[in-house]
Amino acid sequence: MRVSVVGGSVAPEPVETLAEEVGRLLAQRGHTVVCGGLGGVMEAACRGAKDAGGATIGILPSEDRSDANDYVDTCIATGLGHARNTLVVLNGDAVVAIDGSGGTLSEIGFGNVFDRPVAGIRTHSVGSIEGFRSCATPEEAVQFIERET
Amino acid sequence: MRVSVVGGSVAPEPVETLAEEVGRLLAQRGHTVVCGGLGGVMEAACRGAKDAGGATIGILPSEDRSDANDYVDTCIATGLGHARNTLVVLNGDAVVAIDGSGGTLSEIGFGNVFDRPVAGIRTHSVGSIEGFRSCATPEEAVQFIERET
Amino acid sequence: MRVSVVGGSVAPEPVETLAEEVGRLLAQRGHTVVCGGLGGVMEAACRGAKDAGGATIGILPSEDRSDANDYVDTCIATGLGHARNTLVVLNGDAVVAIDGSGGTLSEIGFGNVFDRPVAGIRTHSVGSIEGFRSCATPEEAVQFIERET
Amino acid sequence: MRVSVVGGSVAPEPVETLAEEVGRLLAQRGHTVVCGGLGGVMEAACRGAKDAGGATIGILPSEDRSDANDYVDTCIATGLGHARNTLVVLNGDAVVAIDGSGGTLSEIGFGNVFDRPVAGIRTHSVGSIEGFRSCATPEEAVQFIERET
Repeated sequence: MRVSVVGGSVAPEPVETLAEEVGRLLAQRGHTVVCGGLGGVMEAACRGAKDAGGATIGILPSEDRSDANDYVDTCIATGLGHARNTLVVLNGDAVVAIDGSGGTLSEIGFGNVFDRPVAGIRTHSVGSIEGFRSCATPEEAVQFIERET
Repeated sequence: MRVSVVGGSVAPEPVETLAEEVGRLLAQRGHTVVCGGLGGVMEAACRGAKDAGGATIGILPSEDRSDANDYVDTCIATGLGHARNTLVVLNGDAVVAIDGSGGTLSEIGFGNVFDRPVAGIRTHSVGSIEGFRSCATPEEAVQFIERET
Repeated sequence: MRVSVVGGSVAPEPVETLAEEVGRLLAQRGHTVVCGGLGGVMEAACRGAKDAGGATIGILPSEDRSDANDYVDTCIATGLGHARNTLVVLNGDAVVAIDGSGGTLSEIGFGNVFDRPVAGIRTHSVGSIEGFRSCATPEEAVQFIERET
Repeated sequence: MRVSVVGGSVAPEPVETLAEEVGRLLAQRGHTVVCGGLGGVMEAACRGAKDAGGATIGILPSEDRSDANDYVDTCIATGLGHARNTLVVLNGDAVVAIDGSGGTLSEIGFGNVFDRPVAGIRTHSVGSIEGFRSCATPEEAVQFIERET
């Protein structure tokens, strides 16, 4: 399946390590990584996926496909700015949210709107929103979304 | 100023009462209500605003302006589906979130993205995201956003 | 009704004069001018409408409401870039296209998509597309769209 | 490179034959076909491309990836309705427009906006818009866009 990995475009090293591991695990399990195409969590997840021989899709806010990070296989430019967050979630069958700020929170919200299970790792505590599960590790996150789809 | 009032398109009566009071207070203070143009919290906020002689803007997900509730003065059809949530937040100088589900959570997230203060009433507990304040009453919510803008 | 006036954001003086006259006529006939909110044809049409005591709506490509020209009453920021052209057309009941380039051509196309009559003044010759009429003057353009709606 | 092939979602057989030939030629020349993901010209172009061992991307108006035709390799759901036309053009380096109605005209317009060469086959006569060339055959269309990019 396709899994949207969402998080900040700038991230501290331990967060990038987590994102890379999520990307690697997803690819090993045969899943395609969908993301916002930029740096930070997005780039780390794509790098992990490519490292494990997987496929990646990046859906950019800008009009310029060259803004994509080096690990995006299929890049989609939108020119929609932050409204492209909707498309990032819509194009996965499940979501893994790692760290992040307001943009990531919007994507957790859209996960609920579009009925996608969302696994959160070190991200917002959003209380009891349906379909959201706080997970301690990449393994737990991937297990959760595989079970819920 | 303009204030985006966000929340579910279907809402229990006590929530609608709160939303109507928020709309009324905003209008009394000279603010324009911006919302998603549909029912529930959106309609109640518009009704409150009109009741107090205020102005309202509704930004619809559909292509059809006739989908707007009866209390919308200026209706904008988008045809963008849930991506229109971005526009609802962008067109206010501050946000009041009341109750609601995933769509409302996405709008709280965009409030942070676009640097708008967000007052939440009986809505998601989103922890420590910058610019968000949980408020007990419509009065407290309006005070908070006026102070923060 | 609402009428979308579309054309370039930079326009030679004779084109601006035409756009101002279209805005004036529309306002005198009780119509609201909808446009893309920027300069050139958009600004001239808004100026004409305000001059005649009419109302104007500007739907901007950017996230910043202050990008609107001085004659926009209700400004909607979208952050969608050129995709906002769709919204400009959708929010009128008819379209007047004046001069313009590729963006204007896209809006003539959307006029057909959304079943809006389109009057063109000194704009693209688009052959036989349904609902489009090439008009010689502002008066003829306004007559055409009034008859077709 | 990537080439956007645009045209109606319902098309008469001779038009589909042209679109299929365009898709086949593009794939034989190593190009990826980008389209709106639906039937008619879009499906025929994808079928031609797959037939020649090429790759295809479909950018859908709906939220539902299963709306894509059977010859789309990478499907992107947008939920943006007709505003997705902008994305179809943005994600090609050039455009081939075949037959079509208002939606196709909007995409020819966006080709000019985003500075993409546009080859038109049996489509709108749009006069002298920069970057547009009316072509008699798929071969001529592909030659034109290759030379102009």
